[in-house]
Amino acid sequence: MTRAEVHEGTGQTADLADLYPADRIGLAAAAAARAGIGALLLTPGPDLRYLTGYDAMASERLTCLAVPADGPAFLVAPRLELRSVQASPAGRLGVEIVGWDETDDPYYLVAERLGRPESVGLADQMWATMVLRFRDALPGARQGVASAALRGLRIRKTPAEVAALREAGAAIDRVHGRVPGWLRPGRSEREIAADIAAAIVAEGHARADFVIVGSGPNAARPHHEPSGRVLAAGDAVVVDIGGTMPSGYCSDCTRTYVIGPPPPEFAAYYQVLRQAQAAACAAVRPGVSAEAVDAAAREPITAAGYGEYFIHRTGHGIGLEVHEDPYIVSGNTEALLPGMAFSVEPGIYPGPHGARIEDIVVCTPEGGERLNNATREMVIVDL
Amino acid sequence: MTRAEVHEGTGQTADLADLYPADRIGLAAAAAARAGIGALLLTPGPDLRYLTGYDAMASERLTCLAVPADGPAFLVAPRLELRSVQASPAGRLGVEIVGWDETDDPYYLVAERLGRPESVGLADQMWATMVLRFRDALPGARQGVASAALRGLRIRKTPAEVAALREAGAAIDRVHGRVPGWLRPGRSEREIAADIAAAIVAEGHARADFVIVGSGPNAARPHHEPSGRVLAAGDAVVVDIGGTMPSGYCSDCTRTYVIGPPPPEFAAYYQVLRQAQAAACAAVRPGVSAEAVDAAAREPITAAGYGEYFIHRTGHGIGLEVHEDPYIVSGNTEALLPGMAFSVEPGIYPGPHGARIEDIVVCTPEGGERLNNATREMVIVDL
Repeated sequence: MTRAEVHEGTGQTADLADLYPADRIGLAAAAAARAGIGALLLTPGPDLRYLTGYDAMASERLTCLAVPADGPAFLVAPRLELRSVQASPAGRLGVEIVGWDETDDPYYLVAERLGRPESVGLADQMWATMVLRFRDALPGARQGVASAALRGLRIRKTPAEVAALREAGAAIDRVHGRVPGWLRPGRSEREIAADIAAAIVAEGHARADFVIVGSGPNAARPHHEPSGRVLAAGDAVVVDIGGTMPSGYCSDCTRTYVIGPPPPEFAAYYQVLRQAQAAACAAVRPGVSAEAVDAAAREPITAAGYGEYFIHRTGHGIGLEVHEDPYIVSGNTEALLPGMAFSVEPGIYPGPHGARIEDIVVCTPEGGERLNNATREMVIVDL
Repeated sequence: MTRAEVHEGTGQTADLADLYPADRIGLAAAAAARAGIGALLLTPGPDLRYLTGYDAMASERLTCLAVPADGPAFLVAPRLELRSVQASPAGRLGVEIVGWDETDDPYYLVAERLGRPESVGLADQMWATMVLRFRDALPGARQGVASAALRGLRIRKTPAEVAALREAGAAIDRVHGRVPGWLRPGRSEREIAADIAAAIVAEGHARADFVIVGSGPNAARPHHEPSGRVLAAGDAVVVDIGGTMPSGYCSDCTRTYVIGPPPPEFAAYYQVLRQAQAAACAAVRPGVSAEAVDAAAREPITAAGYGEYFIHRTGHGIGLEVHEDPYIVSGNTEALLPGMAFSVEPGIYPGPHGARIEDIVVCTPEGGERLNNATREMVIVDL
């Protein structure tokens, strides 16, 4: 068996050769050299996909792109997967592809070709089994993370990547446009989540990655999982949803809906939240620190007396992963740069209800551009 | 955002308290002591679920069950996830649950409580970022894999686990029962795969994990991904499918169908394959080695002159992961024990067509019991 993309999205317009340009491996090798890393070792996951376009499955069978700082890259893969590799964008990169058989030791194969690097940068999500096999196969090499080299590349999206994120944002906006129709008293969070998951795929994603439907008291739980709770009049409902497009790029957008008349105090803090979210988006521009954007969201909420109810960071980067650098959180002094893309998602959760508003924002030379445009007005679903 | 189970399967009958008994953490601690491991560190994934029943999401935010060989276990989790932890089976285990805040260093938190273990066993699929953070937070601790301790537990399924695998097998058998209806000339592999994925969920899985539909020449590619190829009369079609049940346990079953009259020679090698698969299943019994089961499948295929076309191992263990120990492969001399469960899936791929038959088999004191029972006769779909 292998994982297969069982849903093929529609509406993919991003060009894969633009999204995954052939010079990335060279850029990565140069970045590794600058970071003092002898070779990058990239197993299936976002780092490998970023460099090659290859959406390889995670498996106990080693697939690994090795990118020496000074030498040709090569891709080691199980012989069973060679056709998939060749058929993927990785097949046109001119990288040597080395197949291994069921009884080979692929770690030895990689080590033998690499020689004796002083250090290696491992794909951030490489499995521990593989980390330790490489530790033993390359005993002289200090292990670090590949993001030490790749972070600077991946964190600044190219115009093609921004276009792919914009396409993902538009797709999830279309889903939010349909959400009010599913929010009916008497329906459970779980039923609504199933409708939303199907719509995420129908609107162009390759897969639905997460669907949070938090109604009533569950709206005050930021990471609530859809339950059997049945919606009732007077509920606020936090709907936080996203998926992965066929391009590989992710969507993530939250809106909070109200079923009929809102609960006491809700309208007041919702307006505070809306202004805070807008203020944080407006704070985005090159040179501003990530934590300053967090502070821009937090200050109006605190000033209005709701500070203790904003219990999570303001946001996270997004791209090939739904959570990646940069994190918009107190303590992150990193300066924003054009091409950085991240969520801006303050929340207020006083209980027994709560609200969150989330958009993906990209930093441009002129300031922040929101990639989500579903209405942020308080949407009251008619009973 | 978080991942949420967006589809809730139906038909779950396995009792979670039987599947995930409360004494597992104690057994794991004892196994760690026997393996000379000071503490197990289990991040989200099958090891954590096996010990606690908690189906935690993989995330850059650390969630980690620490199981010292001699001391009480504790679970560190982001404060945002504490409600999910408490609501999961892990909430009833009496393990101390320690929340951390967005600006805390959770690795330090774990290290401080552990003291100075000489060695730690890391969840096999722990991300490299976490492996290296733990390496730095616990500088004196030799890192190994948790499976050194847990493998012996996980590899032998309890009666409740076998029941869960049997339920998964019956669910995927029902899907195979419906497959011939979707195999129509003029339909693409991708369209058929979408029907199958929906049926995997409809028949009781929490999610579809993989759908291989390899038709015509693609039937000769064991890890083919569904393409736009349109089925035609005379095609053999390999259908290898599986998913994860709400219990956490996986299904995996392959059947090969024929559209109208089979291609030349197909009927002959299909019968060889069927006999080889039956012979391998019949070879399963306690004390027999894993590689002997591989050989039992390989010998009749080789004797019939098709040996070079059987290009992969005979099988893989299955449980909370669709691929886990034991691997049924040449070189694995491990003796089978009652409770081991694995696939038996020989294939013959002479091209431009091929065939594979796969059942999950559990080793019982009396021999092998197949958990899949969809017909293994050559199914010829009427035109």
